[in-house]
Amino acid sequence: MVDTSSFVENTLLRLLDQKKYHSLRDILDTMNPSDLAALLNELDEKRLPLVFRLLSKELAAEAFVEMDPEQQELLIRGFSDTELREVLDELFVDDAVDIVEEMPANVVKRILAQADPDMRKEINEILRYPEDSAGAWMTTEYVSLRPEMTVGEAILRIRRTGVDKETIYTCYVTQDRRLLGMVTVKDLLLCGDDETPISEIMEENVISVNTHDDQEQVAQMFSKYNFLALPVVDQEGRMVGIITFDDAMDVMEDEATEDMEMMAAILPSDKPYARSGVIELVRRRIPWLLLLMLSATFTGLIITNFENALAAYTVLTAFIPMLMGTGGNSGSQASVAIIRSISLGEISFSDLPWIVWKEIRVAVLCGAGLAVCNFAKMMLVDRLLLGNTEVTVPVALAVCLTLVFVVMAAKTIGSILPILAKKIGLDPAVMASPFITTIVDALSLLIYFTVASVLLPL
Amino acid sequence: MVDTSSFVENTLLRLLDQKKYHSLRDILDTMNPSDLAALLNELDEKRLPLVFRLLSKELAAEAFVEMDPEQQELLIRGFSDTELREVLDELFVDDAVDIVEEMPANVVKRILAQADPDMRKEINEILRYPEDSAGAWMTTEYVSLRPEMTVGEAILRIRRTGVDKETIYTCYVTQDRRLLGMVTVKDLLLCGDDETPISEIMEENVISVNTHDDQEQVAQMFSKYNFLALPVVDQEGRMVGIITFDDAMDVMEDEATEDMEMMAAILPSDKPYARSGVIELVRRRIPWLLLLMLSATFTGLIITNFENALAAYTVLTAFIPMLMGTGGNSGSQASVAIIRSISLGEISFSDLPWIVWKEIRVAVLCGAGLAVCNFAKMMLVDRLLLGNTEVTVPVALAVCLTLVFVVMAAKTIGSILPILAKKIGLDPAVMASPFITTIVDALSLLIYFTVASVLLPL
Repeated sequence: MVDTSSFVENTLLRLLDQKKYHSLRDILDTMNPSDLAALLNELDEKRLPLVFRLLSKELAAEAFVEMDPEQQELLIRGFSDTELREVLDELFVDDAVDIVEEMPANVVKRILAQADPDMRKEINEILRYPEDSAGAWMTTEYVSLRPEMTVGEAILRIRRTGVDKETIYTCYVTQDRRLLGMVTVKDLLLCGDDETPISEIMEENVISVNTHDDQEQVAQMFSKYNFLALPVVDQEGRMVGIITFDDAMDVMEDEATEDMEMMAAILPSDKPYARSGVIELVRRRIPWLLLLMLSATFTGLIITNFENALAAYTVLTAFIPMLMGTGGNSGSQASVAIIRSISLGEISFSDLPWIVWKEIRVAVLCGAGLAVCNFAKMMLVDRLLLGNTEVTVPVALAVCLTLVFVVMAAKTIGSILPILAKKIGLDPAVMASPFITTIVDALSLLIYFTVASVLLPL
Repeated sequence: MVDTSSFVENTLLRLLDQKKYHSLRDILDTMNPSDLAALLNELDEKRLPLVFRLLSKELAAEAFVEMDPEQQELLIRGFSDTELREVLDELFVDDAVDIVEEMPANVVKRILAQADPDMRKEINEILRYPEDSAGAWMTTEYVSLRPEMTVGEAILRIRRTGVDKETIYTCYVTQDRRLLGMVTVKDLLLCGDDETPISEIMEENVISVNTHDDQEQVAQMFSKYNFLALPVVDQEGRMVGIITFDDAMDVMEDEATEDMEMMAAILPSDKPYARSGVIELVRRRIPWLLLLMLSATFTGLIITNFENALAAYTVLTAFIPMLMGTGGNSGSQASVAIIRSISLGEISFSDLPWIVWKEIRVAVLCGAGLAVCNFAKMMLVDRLLLGNTEVTVPVALAVCLTLVFVVMAAKTIGSILPILAKKIGLDPAVMASPFITTIVDALSLLIYFTVASVLLPL
C-alpha cells in the first residue's frame, strides 16, 4: 500500500519554508487529491493559501472538495473573487452544495454571488430538499441521451459534453425530461453497429429513486444492486439528477457510525472524533448518561423495597451485578443483531413473530447453559474454594433460576423494541444496549427478589 | 422507490403453478438480477430449477451469483454437467471463487471439473491467498493496455475484449506484467486525438494494493479515494488483478456488522441474522455471556468483602446499579467512539496521548454535571419526595463523588483499551462495551466503598 505519510509531509514543508516553490509544485502535481487534502488540512492560516495557489486549477478544486470545512472556510475567506470563481467553476454541483451547507451565512452569500448563474440555480434547487433526502444529495450533471439517437451519435455526444459530468459511464435516455431507459458506455462501446438506435439497446426497466427518498434506503439500493449511479426523479416523475456510488459509500459509512454511536448512548454527529472538541463531546454524551442515571432511580427503589430481604440474606446482594450484567449483555446481543438487520433492510415489522420465537428459543438454551455453569461455579468456587457458607443450594438455585428468566426477558425485549421503534418511525438504534439495559436492570431485580422470596424463607 | 415485493412474487408463483411458462418468462426477463435472486431464494427444491431454466443464460448467471449459498448448492446438485458448464462460462472469476468457497468438497470438485481450464487455473490461483486478503477478493479479468498503443487502438481493444471484463472503465497499462499506469475510458473518449499514445495520457502515480493487504484496509482506500477499481500487485510487483467498488461496498458493510456484533458481545459471522439457526445463534452468543458472567465473580467478591459496611448502611446498596450503569455507559461511549475512529483509519497508536487527555477532560465535565444533578435528585426525590431518611447529605456526597471518579476511570479505560488492542494485533472492537463494562463494574464498586468508608462512619 502506498503510504503518504509524515515523511512526504515533512519534505514538502521543508521545501515550502525554503521557498523552493518550483520543486514543491512538481511534487504536489503528482499527488492524489485525497492525500493532498489531508496535507492541506494540516497547514496553518499562513501556509495554506501559499500551497493552494501552487496547485493546478483542476487539482486544486479536487483537493478543495475533500478538505475539512474549517480549512475550506479559511481558504474561501482569503480568496479574491476571481480565485473563488475559478475554484467554483471546477466543482461539481453536489460538491458545491456540500460546501455551502457547511459554511456560515456570509460565506454562503459570497459563494452564491460568485457561482455562475446556472450553478447558482442548481445549488438553490438542491438546497430545497430535506437534509437526508436523495434530492439533497444528487448532482444535476449527468449525460442524457435521446431515444432516437444512434450509438455513434451518443458516443459523439459523450465525447463533446462528458468533461463536465460527474460520471459518463451510465447515461440516461429521456424525452421531455421523462426517464425512458439507460445505457452504459460499455453497452455503447461493445455494440457492434454504430447505426443502432439507442432505443433498441437501452435497458428500459430502470430502477430509480425519488427526490424525497431517505439517504439510508438509497445507499442500501447501491449495495444491493451494485450500481455505479442511480437516477433521481421528482414527484412528477421527471428526471432531475443522479447519485453516484462514491456518495453512497460515504452515506453507508456515516449511517454505520451513527448506528454505533446510538448503540453506545452517544448523540450522533457528522463530525469525526478527532475533529470534535471537548465541549462538543460532552454535549453529545451527557444527555443519555443523565437520562439513564435518573432512570436508575427505579432499580434503586426496587432494592430499597426489598431491603429487609437483603438484610436477612446479605449474600443475595453479591449476585446482583452478575445478574444485571448478564441480562444487559443478553438484551444487547439480541437488540444489536436486530438493529443491524433492520439497517441492512433484511427484516421488517412483519417478521416480528418468527424473530421473537427464535429469540425465545435462543434465550432458553443460553439461559439454561449459563445457569448450569453458574450453579457449578457457585458450589465449587464460592462455597468450597472461597468457603462462603452463605452460598447454600437454595441460594444457588434461586440465582440460577433467576438467570434463566432474566436472559429470556432480556432477549425478548431486546428483539421486540427495535422493531417497534422502526414501526413508529424512530431510529431502531435508539433501542440499543443502554436503553434496554436500563429496562432489563429493573426487571432482573424484580425477577430476582420474586424467585428468592419463593425459594428462600425471606 | 421501486418495490419488488410479495405482490410480484405471488403473481409469479401463480403463473408457475398454472404452468403459464411463456408469460412467466416474459416477466422474469424484465427483472433485475438482485430482485430475481431474492425471488429464487424463496423457492423450494421443486420449483427452483423450473424457474431457473426459464431464464436467459446471462440473466441466470447474474441472478445465480446473488443467491444464498444453500439455494446455489440445491441448483448445482440438480444441474446436468452441460448446464453447470453454461452457468460457469457466464461467471466472473471472483464470483466463481466466492461460490466455490461456500460449497462442500464434492460440489467444488464438480465445479472445477466443469470450469474451462483457464478459469480453473484462475480459481485455484485466487484460492491460495489468505481469506480476508486483497488477493482472495480480486478478479483477474481486467483490461490491460500497452504504453505504445494509441488511444484509437486502445478503444478498439476495449471494444474487442471488454465483454468478459468485470469493468472496462479503468484500464491498466502494463509491460512485462509490471504496472506502469492507468487510463479511464473517460480519458480515452474525451481525448481529442485518436493518434495520441497511451503513455502520454496515462496517470503514472497509480495507487495499488498488495495481494496480502487486509480487506478492511482496502475498503478504506475505496471510501477515501472514490475509486471505481484498484489494481492488485503481488510481492514481486507484478499486476495480478483488480478489485472493484461493489466488492468494497460489501466489505464495508460486513466489517461494520462485524464491529457491531463484537461491540455487543456476539462472535461475528458472515451469515445474516435471518438465515442463522437457533443453535448457531446460541453458539455465537453464549461464549461471551459465559465469560462475562464468570468474571462477575470479582464484583461478587468485592461486595462480599464489604458486606459489613453494607449491612450498616443498607441505603448504599440501592445506588450500586446506578453507579455501575453510569460507569458502563460512560466507558462504552468512549470505547465505541475510539473503535469506530480506528476502523475508519482516522486515529492510530501515536494519537493515544491526546485522546486520553481529551477523554479525561470530557470525563471531568460529564462526571461533574452528573454529580450535581444526582445530588439534587437524591435530596429532592429520594429524601424529600420519597421520604427516605437514610439518604443523608454525607451519603449523597459519597455517591456523587464516586460518580465523578467512576466516569473518569471508565472513560480513560474505554479510550485506552481499544488502541492497545489494535497495537498488539487484536480487533479493537473486542474491547467494546461488555468487556469494559465488566472491568468498570469492579472498579466502580472499589471506588464506591473506598469513598464511602472515608466519608461515612462505616
